[in-house]
Amino acid sequence: MAFQDVEGKLESDLYGTGQVIEDFQKKMAAFLGKENAVFFPSGTMAQQIALRIWCDQKGVKRVAYHPLSHLEIHEEDGLKELHQIESVLLADQDRVVELEDIEALKKDVSCILLELPQREIGGQLPSYETLVNISNYCKSKDIKLHLDGARLLEVLPYYKVSAKEICSLFDSVYLSFYKGIGGIAGAILAGSHEFTQESKTWKRRYGGDLISLYPYIISANYNFDKRATEMNRYYTGAIELAELFNSCTRITTRPLQPVSNMFHVHFQASKEKMETILKELYKESDIGMTGNLREVNNKEAYFEVSIGDQYEVIPKEKLKKMFELLELKMHQI
Amino acid sequence: MAFQDVEGKLESDLYGTGQVIEDFQKKMAAFLGKENAVFFPSGTMAQQIALRIWCDQKGVKRVAYHPLSHLEIHEEDGLKELHQIESVLLADQDRVVELEDIEALKKDVSCILLELPQREIGGQLPSYETLVNISNYCKSKDIKLHLDGARLLEVLPYYKVSAKEICSLFDSVYLSFYKGIGGIAGAILAGSHEFTQESKTWKRRYGGDLISLYPYIISANYNFDKRATEMNRYYTGAIELAELFNSCTRITTRPLQPVSNMFHVHFQASKEKMETILKELYKESDIGMTGNLREVNNKEAYFEVSIGDQYEVIPKEKLKKMFELLELKMHQI
Repeated sequence: MAFQDVEGKLESDLYGTGQVIEDFQKKMAAFLGKENAVFFPSGTMAQQIALRIWCDQKGVKRVAYHPLSHLEIHEEDGLKELHQIESVLLADQDRVVELEDIEALKKDVSCILLELPQREIGGQLPSYETLVNISNYCKSKDIKLHLDGARLLEVLPYYKVSAKEICSLFDSVYLSFYKGIGGIAGAILAGSHEFTQESKTWKRRYGGDLISLYPYIISANYNFDKRATEMNRYYTGAIELAELFNSCTRITTRPLQPVSNMFHVHFQASKEKMETILKELYKESDIGMTGNLREVNNKEAYFEVSIGDQYEVIPKEKLKKMFELLELKMHQI
Repeated sequence: MAFQDVEGKLESDLYGTGQVIEDFQKKMAAFLGKENAVFFPSGTMAQQIALRIWCDQKGVKRVAYHPLSHLEIHEEDGLKELHQIESVLLADQDRVVELEDIEALKKDVSCILLELPQREIGGQLPSYETLVNISNYCKSKDIKLHLDGARLLEVLPYYKVSAKEICSLFDSVYLSFYKGIGGIAGAILAGSHEFTQESKTWKRRYGGDLISLYPYIISANYNFDKRATEMNRYYTGAIELAELFNSCTRITTRPLQPVSNMFHVHFQASKEKMETILKELYKESDIGMTGNLREVNNKEAYFEVSIGDQYEVIPKEKLKKMFELLELKMHQI
């Protein structure tokens, strides 16, 4: 679908140049309110590069972020192995980063990375006031603030601000195109002209300056236009669905009331038990809940929900019946 | 075209797993005669990772390659900046690497990278005997041999051997899908099970383990099937076309007789002068020769030719007339 309306004569991007990539980068820079933006094959690459640039600029090879940051748990220690950058972990892993955590830092850091929403704890958010305070604090201490905005669009309905407004609090911003937006892959890194120019050099060093990135760019652009305006609908859906889960015995969502299109569903029952229940439920209700149930300990299991276009496709009556069935099963444990 | 025959229900690859990526990796491993193969977004990433693995294994952060290797001139020093690996340059930049260059190494290296054909000097090749000797020598000295086979398929007609046979001389092999094969982008890195497993960890560190690589894999597979068997035709075309160039005044190809589908065309005339001539020629003959004429010094210019499907589309009579026109112009300089 993304390619259906593309002109056959549109030329491929070529090592970061050409209309297809430059136009999209300009569009994203304007949307995020930054001087410039660079398209990357992945957020992993984009964010490591952002942190490296800030470390080089300050001459301090240390950054700080949440203990469950993508960089800390999903990247095989790329930041440390490729850049020898030390990470200081902010806050307990069960809550979001607050100003106090940053004020309590004992060592100087070049950059602080904030992930909005904090995915691994169900997509929680600090207050907007906290963001403003952190931003001001970092400015006063010569610490760069980087936004892991993989799901940036998804938090705008809760904060009730524009992407530009949030991004103005940060020196650099990363945005993903295959989360709520639903592209194939790819990311944008945005910031000042100088910062983005330097990021292009690193992109080449990483082997991320592909001869052609258009399959990702065209799908990113198509899906951005399609879904950027739908985030409020997803957010409302998440609140509604979380309420239904919370009305069941032995089920709690995290956060209790979602602040984006995502949340985690926690069951006070073993993973094994819950697998049996969810399989039965799928057979009886024809609604599949997850393919990725995770164990917390022997007594608890959870899965992640991200609301997109599919949620509203389920008839409300059918959903209600499924929850009645689920409640019956949870009650009988 | 690549996507036309893909089943609509084919599932996307997911972070390096799934049928679409695993099947292609198996196919390439078998074709190259290696235990395993890993699909990468780019050769830059794949090759740096290969060299890093060999350096770590030996505990020596030093590798050797040709002075005009891709790693040395096109990657913004990624190998040095990301891995602190020192490069020793083999041979003069005007010729290919010979066994003597390797025997003359004064410092121990973990790995030697050979690029076949050596692109930046017109795609030249050492003799097959030299390759065998280098391979044996490296084995005896505990030096790993890595093949920069960006254009590996393109050299098989000259060597008259299979990809498997050549690859058996090397510990690790990289193959590109957007040179002679004509895919969108992407590369394969092949070697032992242990080596490729480690390369996957580094792929994740680099941010190359994209959620989905299928746009590149599907086009690579389609174009591999379409063109892997056509390399002899391209090679023959290159020999024929080079002869035509060499029959002209002030024009020489490098090498004089191509050993793959590529060669360089050198003009004994300034870049400025040649731009005028080639523009006129294009208007008069309707054959465009290059969009990338490069200067050697004030007196010489050159461009690169890679023969693919388009060459045979030009009627021989039309080509002959173009060369008559070109000879006239070159003669009048």
